[in-house]
Amino acid sequence: MKNIKLTIEYDGKRYLGWQRLGDSDKTIQGKIEMTLSKMTGEELEIVGSGRTDSGTHARGQVANFKTASTMTPEKMMSYLNNALPRDIVITNVEEVPERFHARYNASGKQYSYYVWNKEVPSAIERNFSYHYPQELDTKKMQAACDKLVGEHDFIGFSSLKKTKKSTVRTINSIAIDTKGNLIQFKFVGEGFLYNMVRIMMGTILAVGSGEMELSNIDEIFEKKVRQAAGETVPGHGLFLDEVYYN
Amino acid sequence: MKNIKLTIEYDGKRYLGWQRLGDSDKTIQGKIEMTLSKMTGEELEIVGSGRTDSGTHARGQVANFKTASTMTPEKMMSYLNNALPRDIVITNVEEVPERFHARYNASGKQYSYYVWNKEVPSAIERNFSYHYPQELDTKKMQAACDKLVGEHDFIGFSSLKKTKKSTVRTINSIAIDTKGNLIQFKFVGEGFLYNMVRIMMGTILAVGSGEMELSNIDEIFEKKVRQAAGETVPGHGLFLDEVYYN
Repeated sequence: MKNIKLTIEYDGKRYLGWQRLGDSDKTIQGKIEMTLSKMTGEELEIVGSGRTDSGTHARGQVANFKTASTMTPEKMMSYLNNALPRDIVITNVEEVPERFHARYNASGKQYSYYVWNKEVPSAIERNFSYHYPQELDTKKMQAACDKLVGEHDFIGFSSLKKTKKSTVRTINSIAIDTKGNLIQFKFVGEGFLYNMVRIMMGTILAVGSGEMELSNIDEIFEKKVRQAAGETVPGHGLFLDEVYYN
Repeated sequence: MKNIKLTIEYDGKRYLGWQRLGDSDKTIQGKIEMTLSKMTGEELEIVGSGRTDSGTHARGQVANFKTASTMTPEKMMSYLNNALPRDIVITNVEEVPERFHARYNASGKQYSYYVWNKEVPSAIERNFSYHYPQELDTKKMQAACDKLVGEHDFIGFSSLKKTKKSTVRTINSIAIDTKGNLIQFKFVGEGFLYNMVRIMMGTILAVGSGEMELSNIDEIFEKKVRQAAGETVPGHGLFLDEVYYN
């Protein structure tokens, strides 16, 4: 059996997220598995680096699958991009060692979150950013980002129920890049809990608009409860940019 | 009667372009006129700064209309943005002098054209850029842009049939901005003929990929025939960024 690694770009607008839900073809994983099964004639299952939520996009999602197919990676890529809808594009196909696992082997990820910061919404950016009309103080937001960077127990910034697994994660950097009314927040970290980027983002925006104080972030780390943090901002502003493997 | 100026942002994907076609609600002008008529109870007609083609977008289209309505500009803007679909957003409403005419008074325009320059298409940028997989030489493209800038008879870069009106226009600047695989071409000029940006763009790309020589541009200016120029690139890569008024 060959082990094949896929890199995938998608516009998540029409989908319920990455993870397959029964027979629904409204998930990215479901769409790709159906297409791969047609291509190879096998019952296939793909392993993603992680889930993405409903409406969330990816520039570089990674997945792998095992197959007995003798097709070359080039032929697979061409077949897949012809057969898949235009909002899912396979940007790379390669054969990898048998032990490669897209989720277990991921050593880090980069996400971007886009905020449209203007009183009126944007017709053009509406499916790729979150409309946040309140005025934002970039210095305060940067200070909030700096507090979140590092190794912390992020349970208070997650929608996880109680868990026995560790909820300590390391954020390497959070960068803010403003172009006109569009603000990009770039998160690089070794791992992220469920909804963690979206809740950190809601908290950064609350600090930027003056609804929360910087000291509230210390409190969320201390209290370890979700209720203390900002809102879970919508999934359609979020992009999985890249998955890192050592 | 009041004269009202609208600034409009739209995602042109679902529309047949700016200009109203009979009763179809598949045009931007038609959608806005129908909504304004409901708002005011009047039979209204709006004058746009110019047409945009099927699939073409706008960040700053300008239009004006006459009305007897006593609504304030703020109320109008709020009504319109609630009533219009999310892919059309009114970004400004103001009362202007009676003589203001969105088309006749326009002194210049800025357009952007986006090219996705990579072998595989982009899932995310697919409705907002033209996928051009061939390798492009930026220096050659910049030289082509420099040849187009200035005052010329642009009839060879237009889909116009023979006309008695002057086809001399002035292009002030064409700038190239590359971000990863996405290349933005920014055109500023006093006026543009029918399809002129899209045909100039097709010609710039043909020079960049080596299909045409720089000297071909001089020939198009001399011969004044459309057949000598590059292809008319698709409308969905084009944005009307701004309309200038003195």
